[in-house]
Amino acid sequence: MTLTGYDVAHLMLLLGVLLLAARGVGEIFRRMKQPAIIGEIVAGIFLGPSILGNLFPQVHAFFFKSSPAAMLAIQGITQFALVLLLLISGIEVDLARAIKQGRSALLTSLFSFIFPFAIGYGAGYFFAPQLGLQQGSNTVVFALFLGVALSITALPVVARTLMDIGIFNSEVGLTIIASSMFIDFIGWLIFSVILSMLGQSMTPYGFTGTVLLTFAFVGFTLLIGRKIINKMIPFIQEKLSFPGGILNFIFILGLFAAAFTEYIGIHAIFGAFIMGIAIGDSPHLKEQTRENIQQFITNIFAPLFFISIGLRADFVNNFNGWLLLIYLLLAFGTKIIGSSFGAFLGGFKKYDALIVGFGMNSRGAMEIILGLLALQFNVINEQVYVVLVLMALITSLSSAPLMSIFIRKSPSFIKPSKLLKPKQVIISSARTVEEVIKELTQLAADDLRMKPEIIYNDVMQRESELPTGIARAIAIPHARVAIANPFIAAAYVSAGIDFSAADEIPANIVFLLLTPMKKNELQLEMLAGLARFASVANVAEFAAQPDAKALHQKLIAILETVERK
Amino acid sequence: MTLTGYDVAHLMLLLGVLLLAARGVGEIFRRMKQPAIIGEIVAGIFLGPSILGNLFPQVHAFFFKSSPAAMLAIQGITQFALVLLLLISGIEVDLARAIKQGRSALLTSLFSFIFPFAIGYGAGYFFAPQLGLQQGSNTVVFALFLGVALSITALPVVARTLMDIGIFNSEVGLTIIASSMFIDFIGWLIFSVILSMLGQSMTPYGFTGTVLLTFAFVGFTLLIGRKIINKMIPFIQEKLSFPGGILNFIFILGLFAAAFTEYIGIHAIFGAFIMGIAIGDSPHLKEQTRENIQQFITNIFAPLFFISIGLRADFVNNFNGWLLLIYLLLAFGTKIIGSSFGAFLGGFKKYDALIVGFGMNSRGAMEIILGLLALQFNVINEQVYVVLVLMALITSLSSAPLMSIFIRKSPSFIKPSKLLKPKQVIISSARTVEEVIKELTQLAADDLRMKPEIIYNDVMQRESELPTGIARAIAIPHARVAIANPFIAAAYVSAGIDFSAADEIPANIVFLLLTPMKKNELQLEMLAGLARFASVANVAEFAAQPDAKALHQKLIAILETVERK
Repeated sequence: MTLTGYDVAHLMLLLGVLLLAARGVGEIFRRMKQPAIIGEIVAGIFLGPSILGNLFPQVHAFFFKSSPAAMLAIQGITQFALVLLLLISGIEVDLARAIKQGRSALLTSLFSFIFPFAIGYGAGYFFAPQLGLQQGSNTVVFALFLGVALSITALPVVARTLMDIGIFNSEVGLTIIASSMFIDFIGWLIFSVILSMLGQSMTPYGFTGTVLLTFAFVGFTLLIGRKIINKMIPFIQEKLSFPGGILNFIFILGLFAAAFTEYIGIHAIFGAFIMGIAIGDSPHLKEQTRENIQQFITNIFAPLFFISIGLRADFVNNFNGWLLLIYLLLAFGTKIIGSSFGAFLGGFKKYDALIVGFGMNSRGAMEIILGLLALQFNVINEQVYVVLVLMALITSLSSAPLMSIFIRKSPSFIKPSKLLKPKQVIISSARTVEEVIKELTQLAADDLRMKPEIIYNDVMQRESELPTGIARAIAIPHARVAIANPFIAAAYVSAGIDFSAADEIPANIVFLLLTPMKKNELQLEMLAGLARFASVANVAEFAAQPDAKALHQKLIAILETVERK
Repeated sequence: MTLTGYDVAHLMLLLGVLLLAARGVGEIFRRMKQPAIIGEIVAGIFLGPSILGNLFPQVHAFFFKSSPAAMLAIQGITQFALVLLLLISGIEVDLARAIKQGRSALLTSLFSFIFPFAIGYGAGYFFAPQLGLQQGSNTVVFALFLGVALSITALPVVARTLMDIGIFNSEVGLTIIASSMFIDFIGWLIFSVILSMLGQSMTPYGFTGTVLLTFAFVGFTLLIGRKIINKMIPFIQEKLSFPGGILNFIFILGLFAAAFTEYIGIHAIFGAFIMGIAIGDSPHLKEQTRENIQQFITNIFAPLFFISIGLRADFVNNFNGWLLLIYLLLAFGTKIIGSSFGAFLGGFKKYDALIVGFGMNSRGAMEIILGLLALQFNVINEQVYVVLVLMALITSLSSAPLMSIFIRKSPSFIKPSKLLKPKQVIISSARTVEEVIKELTQLAADDLRMKPEIIYNDVMQRESELPTGIARAIAIPHARVAIANPFIAAAYVSAGIDFSAADEIPANIVFLLLTPMKKNELQLEMLAGLARFASVANVAEFAAQPDAKALHQKLIAILETVERK
C-alpha cells in the first residue's frame, strides 16, 4: 500500500481543515473565557456526521470518505497525538506530592473511586440495556466500564480549575490533586485490564498473563525505570542538543512504553501515561523542557485529537436526553457523595469535604478518551458515547462554579478581610502593650459575649512566650480561645508601642487575632495572611486617615490586595 | 479501514525506533562536527534494506512489513514532515534580499541553472539507459529530470555553510544565497511541471492547464497572497494565543497550498515552498515565531523524514561505483563551471567567481527529495536514487573545504591581519604627519620596490583632501597605487600626531594602507577592517610594548579578534 498523489493531497487538505476548524473554534471559546479544548470538540461535532453530515452529506463524504488511505494516515496521526496527550498527562502527575498528602488523599481517592465504581457496576449490571449496552456485548464488561466511567477524575482539568479559582495550594486543593492522581492511575489500570478481557486485543498471554505483565511494567517503570531516567536526564539536557535531545528522549520513551503496553494487551495510552509519571517525577527535568513539550503537544497534536472526538458520532441523531439525565445524575451523585465522604473521613470539615467532592467531579478529556475506546471496542453504543462526551463537558464546566459556592462558606477559606468589621477598628492613644491589648480584648469580649479578662490573659500569656511584633510597625497579638469562628480587631496607635519586633520599629498597627481552640491551621493561615499585610503596608498611609471608618476602609483595601496574590 | 490494536502498537514502536535511530546517529555526527542530518540519513541506511535487511531480513521484515496499515500511517506522517520541511525552506527564502543582489545574482543563477540543465538534459537524452533510466519510462522525462537534478542548489545547506565559514554577509555570500533562491524556485517549478507531464498525478486539467494553474498559483501567492498574509500576521500574533495561533496559521496555509498544488497536478511540496516564501517575506513575523517553527519541525518531523530516505532503497546492492563517478563528474563539473561563469559575467573576479561556483554546488536535502519523488514516479531506478543521495551528501560536505581554498586566495577576503608583516611595524619618533608618512612610505617602497616619492605623494594628496585621523588615537593614511596586492604598514608614535580626528585625540598608531588601483571595494573593506580595530584598541596597551616585534604581535592579536566578529 502506498499513498497516491490524490491521497497525499487529501491528507494535507484534511490536516489543514481539521487544524483550522479546531483552532478557529478553540480561539473563539478562549476569547469567551471558556476552555479552548471545548471549542475544539465543538468544531468536530460541526464537521462530523452531526451537522455537516446531516446538512451536506456530499461535502462530508468528500472530506471523510473519498480517500480511505488518507483517513488511515489521519487515524495514525490521531493515535500518535493521543499517546502524546497521555504522556504529558503523566508528566503533570507529581507522585511525591500525591504521597505527601497521605491519609486524607488516600481516603478521598478510595471512596471517590469505590463509591462511583460500585454504583456504576451495579447499575451497569442490572440495567445494561437501558444504559446503552452495545448489542451483543458482554454485560459484565459493560458494567465494569460504567464503573470506571463514573469514577474517573481528569487531573489536567482539575489542576487548571484549582489554579483558576486560586485554591491550588490550599490543603483542600492539594488533596484534590493528589486524589485525582491516584484515581487516574487506578482507573486506567482497571480499564486497561477490561480491554484485555475483551480479547479483542492481540495479547498472546491470556487475561492473567496480561494482568501480571501490567503490574510488572508499572512496578518496573515507577520503581527502577524512574531512577534510571532521573540519572539520564541531566546528561541529556547538558550533553545533547537542547531542546531537541530531551524532547526526543521523552517522546521515544513514551512511544516505546505505549507500544509495549499495547503489545501485552492493554492500551497504548496506559504505557504512555505511566512513562509520563516516571519522567515527570525527575527533579532534573527543566521547566523549559516541560514547557516545550507542552507547547509542542497542545498546539498541533491536541487539537487534532480533540476535533476527532466530534467526528466519530452523530451527536444530533444519537442524542438521548433521558439517557443524558440518568448519566448526569449517576455521575454527579456518586462522585460527589463518594469524594466528600472520603474527604470527611480524612479529616476535612463539612464545607471543605464538599469542595473536594465537587472538585473531583471533573471528567474532562479522560472520560472522552475512555468513551472513544469503549466505542471502538463495541462496549457501548453511539448514544452512550454522545452522553459521555456531554457528561465530561458538563461535569468539567460546572466544577468551578459549584466549588465556589462552598468556598465562600468554608472556614478554611475565610480571609482576614472578610472578618474585620468596621466597629472592630479603633484609633488608640495607648502607650504600652498591656493598654492596647486591653482595649482590643474589650472589643472582642463585647462582640463575642465573653469575659474580657479571659481573653486578655490568654493573649498576654502568648505575648509573654514570644512577643508578636512582626516588622514594619505591625504587631499581631493572638490567642486560641473557646470560640466557633475567628475574630480580628485592629488599632492604630500613633505613639508606637514596642512589641519587640526584629527590626526594632515600634508598632503603630496592632491586630488582635482570636481563633477557635482546636484549629491550629486556621490560626496559622490567618497569621500568615496578616503577616503578608505587614510586608506591603506603609504605616505612613494610616497616620493620614482622619477617623476609624477611613482607617477600616484602608485596612480592608490592603488586605484584599494581599489576599488576591 | 481502521487501525487494529496491533497496528497501533506497531506504529508507536516504529515511530519510537525511527526517532531513536535518527536522533541517536544524528547526535553522534553532530558531536563529530558533522551535520546531524547526515547522521539521520545514515541511520536510515542502517535500518533499511541496505544493512538490516541484508543481515537480518526477518528483523527488517518485522519492523517494516508486519503491519501495512502502520506503514501507511508512517508514510502519511513522513509526507506531512516533508511538506513542513519545504514550508520552512520557503520561509528561509528572503525575496527582498534576492532581488537586491540584482544583476550578479541573476547572471549567476541563470548560468548556474542553464548550464547543468542543458548538459544534464543532453546526457539524459542520449545516454538514458547508461545513466539509469527506469525501464519502460519516458526518455524525455528522464532527460528533463536529470537536467533539474544537476542544476539544483539547496538553499538551507548553502546558508548554513556560508555562516560556518563566516562569509554569509560578504558580497560573494549574498550572491550565492540570492542565486540559490532563484534556482530553488525555478528548479521546483520545472520539476513540478515534469511530474505533471508524467500523467501519473490525477490532474484533470491536462498539461497546459496544469502549467497555467501553476503560474496563476505562484503569481497569486507571491503578489497578492503575500500582502494579505503580511496584514494578517500582526493581528494573529497579538490577538490570538501565542505562539499557538501563529504556528497554526502558518501550518494551515502551508497545508492548504500543498493540497492545492497536489490537486492541480504538481507536487504538494511545491505549494508548501511557495507559501513559505510568501509567509517568510513578512517583516511582521517575529523571530520567536520563526524559531518556534524551526524547532518544532527540525526536532521531530525532519528526523522522521531524513531517516525515511535510507529506508527506501538497498544502498549496498544498488551501489554502482561507476555510475556514482559519472554523476559526481557531471554534478561538480556543470554546476561549478556554470555558476562560476555566471558570477564572472556578473562582475566577480576569478577567485570570487570560483567561490560562488563551489558554494552553489551543495545539493543537500533538495536533491534527495527530488530523487525520492523520481523513484516513486518510476522515472529513475534504485541505483540512480542511491547515487543521487550520495551525490547530495558529497557535494554538500565538500562545499565548505573547497570554498575555503579559494577564500584564502581571493583579494575580497584578504584581511589586514594577514597582510601586516613584522618588518612593516616600527616604533617611530616622528612629530609631524609628513614625517610619519615618509617613514611608512619608505617601508612600502622597500617592500614593493617602488619609488618612495610616488607613494608619498599619492598618500599626502589623499591626506590633503580629507585627513585620515579616525578616532581613539588611530590614523589610517591610505592611497590606491599601481600594485597587485594590498599593503599595510604600521607605526607607533609615542608623541602623538594630530591627524585631525573627530575626537581631536592625536594619533599614536598610524597605519599606512596601499591598495591596487581599480579595487575600490577592496580599499573600502580594508579601511573598514582597520577602522574596526580603532573601535576596540586601547592605545595605552601599545605604549607598554617593549619593541617593534612585541608591538606587531599585539597588533595582529587585536586585528584577528576584530576580524573574527
